[in-house]
Amino acid sequence: MNPIPNRRIVLASRPNGTPTASNFRLETATVADLDPGQVLLRTIWLSLAPYMFWRMRDEKSYAPPVALGEVMVGATVGEVVASRHDGFKPGDIALGGGGWQEYAALDGRALRKIDPTWGPSSLALGVLGGNGLTAYAGLLDIGRPQPGETIVVAAASGGVGSIVGQIGRIKGARAVGIAGGAEKCGFVRDELGFDECVDHRGADFPAKLAAACPGGIDVYFENVGGAVWDAVFPLLNDFARVPVCGLISQYDKTELPPGPNRVAELMRAVLTKRLLLRGYISSDYAAMQEEAFAALLGWMRDGKLRHREDVTDGLENAPQALLTMLSGRNFGKVLVRVGAEP
Amino acid sequence: MNPIPNRRIVLASRPNGTPTASNFRLETATVADLDPGQVLLRTIWLSLAPYMFWRMRDEKSYAPPVALGEVMVGATVGEVVASRHDGFKPGDIALGGGGWQEYAALDGRALRKIDPTWGPSSLALGVLGGNGLTAYAGLLDIGRPQPGETIVVAAASGGVGSIVGQIGRIKGARAVGIAGGAEKCGFVRDELGFDECVDHRGADFPAKLAAACPGGIDVYFENVGGAVWDAVFPLLNDFARVPVCGLISQYDKTELPPGPNRVAELMRAVLTKRLLLRGYISSDYAAMQEEAFAALLGWMRDGKLRHREDVTDGLENAPQALLTMLSGRNFGKVLVRVGAEP
Repeated sequence: MNPIPNRRIVLASRPNGTPTASNFRLETATVADLDPGQVLLRTIWLSLAPYMFWRMRDEKSYAPPVALGEVMVGATVGEVVASRHDGFKPGDIALGGGGWQEYAALDGRALRKIDPTWGPSSLALGVLGGNGLTAYAGLLDIGRPQPGETIVVAAASGGVGSIVGQIGRIKGARAVGIAGGAEKCGFVRDELGFDECVDHRGADFPAKLAAACPGGIDVYFENVGGAVWDAVFPLLNDFARVPVCGLISQYDKTELPPGPNRVAELMRAVLTKRLLLRGYISSDYAAMQEEAFAALLGWMRDGKLRHREDVTDGLENAPQALLTMLSGRNFGKVLVRVGAEP
Repeated sequence: MNPIPNRRIVLASRPNGTPTASNFRLETATVADLDPGQVLLRTIWLSLAPYMFWRMRDEKSYAPPVALGEVMVGATVGEVVASRHDGFKPGDIALGGGGWQEYAALDGRALRKIDPTWGPSSLALGVLGGNGLTAYAGLLDIGRPQPGETIVVAAASGGVGSIVGQIGRIKGARAVGIAGGAEKCGFVRDELGFDECVDHRGADFPAKLAAACPGGIDVYFENVGGAVWDAVFPLLNDFARVPVCGLISQYDKTELPPGPNRVAELMRAVLTKRLLLRGYISSDYAAMQEEAFAALLGWMRDGKLRHREDVTDGLENAPQALLTMLSGRNFGKVLVRVGAEP
């Protein structure tokens, strides 16, 4: 059998501040023979997410950085084309960490077979995958919205935020989104059913956010940081909960902003308002996965949970799709269609 | 019957930055007749605590400020000298919010009778009172130390910190105290049994704290803020928990320190290390009070829990005792002996 060519995108250099296309390199390798226990997955969908910016930088985070010259990391959905693992056979569709490449040889123990009755396979990278678990666990375990409370969701049109606000509504809370631009805000209100959505690029954003939250904020789902946090902070109510899921406004920052140093102000508010701030990533909640997916699937089938995908075609366009996300110009869960559905 | 004179200390003016003796005024009123349901308490012990600095300032906090000309607030233990409440009779010893005065007419529903078998009545203002509940609830409900973990306790020789570290040891954690000066550090190590204590006034404090925590910090009990927080922050481990109980270094600050603004750095650490920060005050944990006091009393009787009182004699000396606390020169739980034990 002739070697199968494998196009892949590797980290060519580390960004200094804002990442650029030159930090990536497309190259072609060949697919290696499988070791015992491995499965060869042909990539159909690649999921892009903000954590990738940090993995490009050589800094301490919750996972080590991608090495220079190595394939960029990422969750994928693919078709099994060869298997040396008893649990998988050619034709199966599976979820794994295949990265930015057309083929990935992966340990079968790290793969999850996708139930075709759940709907399109891309859902396993969105509502019924990491995004769904992230939204469900962060909102319900950390945020704990009560009926009648106000939750504010940063990046409300994105893969995670869109789900957070809809779960909040299902649980009886009032959901106020924050998104960039009138089109996204319209989608968040009209399609996703949030009670309000405020454009963080609009004039007078802090005043408009305050007007949208006349009773203050009980849960703030943090996915942005920076100026959005600054507008939210004074509106937090006593006993407000802040799940810290992401900080997309900060991924290209190389220096701290000028003073004054507002840490003391933050800590004083934590004390006097008895705030809860807690960071997490979805893998901290692996034990909650089955519960989350069952609930999310039920809500989708009942028509209570909608989603939007922002699809880019072609592996070679993945770098630009990631850079678009950093600028906030994506609209929905960002996916790259790397190969055809079988 | 002649009117009973009642010496009391009122708030004469609000501090601008560091409070001074001129912010207080000693005056003499007379004891008013009791309303139905009220109890007249002759103050024996007055408890002083850092929250009083905030109540002197006209700022938003978890409780309204003391009005100018009104008696300073504070928890007291006193002897019932008259009662129009069925639950109390003259001679009873009770805990209440009597404030800085020799006599207080208080609603009987807001008083707690003190069990004389528990030991000296002053314990109801310390280990078996607000300090004990604050330490127990904050450490065990928010901090949740696990055996073998390292807990760091700010203000470790004080009324709350001294209890926190000892409970941590009882729960199998390694306790590292932070205190001001060699004498307090010796007390924290040798009398209270902490594993280590680091002098925050010493040269090279951050390096010494790091050396005392070779495995990093799993729980940081925050009672100080400022430079102590700055030294703790880089040592926090993944999944560290930070109960925020007080910020004694900040009570006299009127301006934020110069930049850079480190809020983004803090939020990034919350995310990547999955930190938990949570503020609280003891009254949030009223439901945990009986559990806490039973445990604390048991540990005291078993000799596992020691305490130290810093007693000032005479109501007229209460202002100076409070100012001494702000400068960190108190040593143990701060009490004012206002009147004799019966």
